[in-house]
Amino acid sequence: MAHLNSDPIGVFDSGIGGLTVVKTIMAKLPHENIIYFGDIARLPYGTKSVTTIRKFAAQTVKFLISQKVKAIVIACNTISAVAKDEVKNLAKNIPVIDVISSGSKASAFSSKNNKIGVIATPATINSDAYPTAIQKLNPKVQVFSQACSLFVPLIEEGFIDHVALELIAREYLQPLIRQQIDTLILGCTHYPLIKEVIAKIMGIHTNLIDPAISTSEELVQTLSMMKMFNLDNIAPDYRFFVTEIVPKFQSIGERFLKTQINHLELVTLD
Amino acid sequence: MAHLNSDPIGVFDSGIGGLTVVKTIMAKLPHENIIYFGDIARLPYGTKSVTTIRKFAAQTVKFLISQKVKAIVIACNTISAVAKDEVKNLAKNIPVIDVISSGSKASAFSSKNNKIGVIATPATINSDAYPTAIQKLNPKVQVFSQACSLFVPLIEEGFIDHVALELIAREYLQPLIRQQIDTLILGCTHYPLIKEVIAKIMGIHTNLIDPAISTSEELVQTLSMMKMFNLDNIAPDYRFFVTEIVPKFQSIGERFLKTQINHLELVTLD
Repeated sequence: MAHLNSDPIGVFDSGIGGLTVVKTIMAKLPHENIIYFGDIARLPYGTKSVTTIRKFAAQTVKFLISQKVKAIVIACNTISAVAKDEVKNLAKNIPVIDVISSGSKASAFSSKNNKIGVIATPATINSDAYPTAIQKLNPKVQVFSQACSLFVPLIEEGFIDHVALELIAREYLQPLIRQQIDTLILGCTHYPLIKEVIAKIMGIHTNLIDPAISTSEELVQTLSMMKMFNLDNIAPDYRFFVTEIVPKFQSIGERFLKTQINHLELVTLD
Repeated sequence: MAHLNSDPIGVFDSGIGGLTVVKTIMAKLPHENIIYFGDIARLPYGTKSVTTIRKFAAQTVKFLISQKVKAIVIACNTISAVAKDEVKNLAKNIPVIDVISSGSKASAFSSKNNKIGVIATPATINSDAYPTAIQKLNPKVQVFSQACSLFVPLIEEGFIDHVALELIAREYLQPLIRQQIDTLILGCTHYPLIKEVIAKIMGIHTNLIDPAISTSEELVQTLSMMKMFNLDNIAPDYRFFVTEIVPKFQSIGERFLKTQINHLELVTLD
């Protein structure tokens, strides 16, 4: 099936975090139409098995294909970690970009002392996806991982500037500081919202990598190579699909996106 | 279908929290066989719609009936709040006991100044189930509710004795202290694990009500009335069914239960 330049970019996540990726895509590609899919009814994926996550990802990709997307962005570290290949197989000729591959490329050569840290949800950490991808690109690098389970609920509950967040963050980041990492990957799409706290704790000598930014840059390159930029000179269309309508999606989502969510639609996957 | 005295008691929850209810049942009814069901693959229920929760609860009850349970305990405040009637309809002649009805009965006349507080997940609080049940029993009572979203992840992450938990708890409990409540219902099955911190913040003049205890007491009365105590003089059989096997269930579960989980089995519901 041939795609039109005006076809949307499909971005998906288990929930709401992928909106930080949408935000950077909107900024870098202001003319592109975007479809966002968040599997609110079945989140979080982070605690589910690989089999379950792959099944859910496959259902989502079929939905995105039915919406004629010209490119697919996996805006979720958990899905990138365990289901990237399934997504690519299903997507066939539609290019697939994922936060882990992009984030790994952006960080593999960025450490001066070859010590990189990754913080993420337990599922992403347990998958070993970042260390595997980074060491493939640069075998000299040592990668130190730290699961930070509480960051997502703290962020969603709005404890972004609270001293409790800082205390918990210090607890999580201490082992990485001890390892003297000079580069830290924010391996969860929620974490850019607490970048300031993390930067404060890590100190000015640690370079923070936000994979949302490298993902958007890779998307720009991909569309450029395919000559698939949207050339319509009208306001882009942003549509948000969720498997469950919860007030939280709108309120937290707009905080993530820093803009309004106008077109929100319920979709059922089976 | 007639039941045998040796048939198990079925206890269910969206996840792991209901194990605090199982623990009190084990203590009060040490001869009873127990089947526990935790819908790990689809948790948390707290953020899902009423329709979804009712559908999931119905599937679970059908499973418990297929296991020949002689009584059903809804060991989850969210399910009790929104799906109690569906469970009773499906259970037919099998008695159903739920944490909210039991907790409300235990607290409705326990306040000297008729000011009762309830802390729970957002879903339970939004359902208004505790205030409704309590005021039906005692219209003089004022009920003050407070959602505490972060308690469950903090408890599951093991931050039980951490100062961050206390800071967050102070934040949540402050409005209830201002209302001068003298009775506080722990309206989430996870909360008994942080009872000490809550008691410390609320002070000695606040009576903490743990619905797990009243639920177990109501179960004792129900089995007594039905003459359905298990009379077998052998070690009881405890079986745990989950919709997803995660290492967390065993490790956190044993912390909740204060005993080992030996018989753990995967079950798929659709």
